Amino acid sequence: MKTEHKGGLVVLKLGGSAITIKEKEMTPNGKVIERLCKEIAEAKPEKLLMVHGGGSFGHPLAKRYRIMEGFHEKSQFLGFAKTHHAMTVLNQLIVKSLLDNGVPAIGIAPSSFIITKKGRIESFDLNVLTEMLKMNFTPVLYGDAVLDSENGFAILSGDQLVSFLAVKLEAERIIIGVDVDGLFTADPKMDDSAELIEEVSPSELEKMLLKIGRTEAVDVTGGMFGKMNELLKAAKHGIPILIVNALKPNKIYKALRGERVVGTLIWKG
Amino acid sequence: MKTEHKGGLVVLKLGGSAITIKEKEMTPNGKVIERLCKEIAEAKPEKLLMVHGGGSFGHPLAKRYRIMEGFHEKSQFLGFAKTHHAMTVLNQLIVKSLLDNGVPAIGIAPSSFIITKKGRIESFDLNVLTEMLKMNFTPVLYGDAVLDSENGFAILSGDQLVSFLAVKLEAERIIIGVDVDGLFTADPKMDDSAELIEEVSPSELEKMLLKIGRTEAVDVTGGMFGKMNELLKAAKHGIPILIVNALKPNKIYKALRGERVVGTLIWKG
Repeated sequence: MKTEHKGGLVVLKLGGSAITIKEKEMTPNGKVIERLCKEIAEAKPEKLLMVHGGGSFGHPLAKRYRIMEGFHEKSQFLGFAKTHHAMTVLNQLIVKSLLDNGVPAIGIAPSSFIITKKGRIESFDLNVLTEMLKMNFTPVLYGDAVLDSENGFAILSGDQLVSFLAVKLEAERIIIGVDVDGLFTADPKMDDSAELIEEVSPSELEKMLLKIGRTEAVDVTGGMFGKMNELLKAAKHGIPILIVNALKPNKIYKALRGERVVGTLIWKG
Repeated sequence: MKTEHKGGLVVLKLGGSAITIKEKEMTPNGKVIERLCKEIAEAKPEKLLMVHGGGSFGHPLAKRYRIMEGFHEKSQFLGFAKTHHAMTVLNQLIVKSLLDNGVPAIGIAPSSFIITKKGRIESFDLNVLTEMLKMNFTPVLYGDAVLDSENGFAILSGDQLVSFLAVKLEAERIIIGVDVDGLFTADPKMDDSAELIEEVSPSELEKMLLKIGRTEAVDVTGGMFGKMNELLKAAKHGIPILIVNALKPNKIYKALRGERVVGTLIWKG
């Protein structure tokens, strides 16, 4: 991949659908987490920042207590606290596995210091992250329930964090590990005619997203286009994004090493 | 206790020696944690902020990797990460128990946003804590391995956090739960003639600490006077501090309710 420069920051996202068992609440996909952390340890770029999603840890609780809708009633407070706690449990499993493989990983709790405004990051002191990356620590953030200055609280998605941090910290590239091979023309789990999009420019992707936004109430591509709306911000900023299947061994390893693997590359080319 | 005003902020510290098994690395005192979280849920003041120590989770790792001495060599990075991770494990146990008892507790990770300078808090954005307390969440902080602008990293003790936050957030009172009945004239675990100090003014306490500082290399009172140096800052600020035995049932409950229990009250009277 032409865009690799040694020493540059790599932002790696591990999707909740890959690292947890979707159907079972609060259930990690232990084998996948272990394998991925080994791959990360073996391929580790000097500067690595990680973000992971919530999967069956964060989503069911956030949905049950309607955290994404903001504050409505007092019973949500316990729900907010439970949602954050569930995410710390998942985060700890990943950090533990990284530590066991020799990666100096540090869990960073978004809700401890980030406040959103209508769901968008409003204040974010980058000082600690910047210093940690200088010392070659691997910060591991996650989608989290956070306070919101307009709505009381909100869900800050891992994808928003990825785009925000990649731009602010001038990342060299972004790798997104999901449970499919990349971005498809339709939902590969539902539609046999779905084709993998191997490369797409930010402007082409934007056109695709606008078209979907106009025509489809439901996301026909299995949720992937929704994530793309968030990641498009970093892509338009000139940061290449590679989406790969984290469930398939060695994809994350190779992607971290800068090798071109099966997946979707979003880049202006 | 004359100083109780309803609605005021109470800062509660749970000492590492009470909530962990000192002799066994990474071993919580599960029964004590469970009982204390029940007591806290039953007596919970509207505004409560908690801080806990490290005990057998944080201390052995911090010592092994000499984190308190600051950065010396690269092998410490993994040790720093492991120390923080151990503290998040202990924090999660306490938060989980509070949640199970209906307390909307939120673990707050000091290392995610606090930087010290030569071991003293240098920057601390209080925004998130202030908002959480307004919403009657119970933030639960802990002694942690943090970045240090002079020395690379440092240990930020729970006691420093207690004093700092109580002063900044204008706490009404501080309760310190430890594994002894309070402050003694000598180490009650070593010396039968040790007498409990039931009440002491900040200026008297300061004189005692100065005397010890001049005459004793080793802290003869079982480590309690060391903690007092930190807490003296809040005491001199006019915040009453009650030290009680968290290993004895209902002491924390009664203290939270504003009742006078066996222990040491540090107050200007």
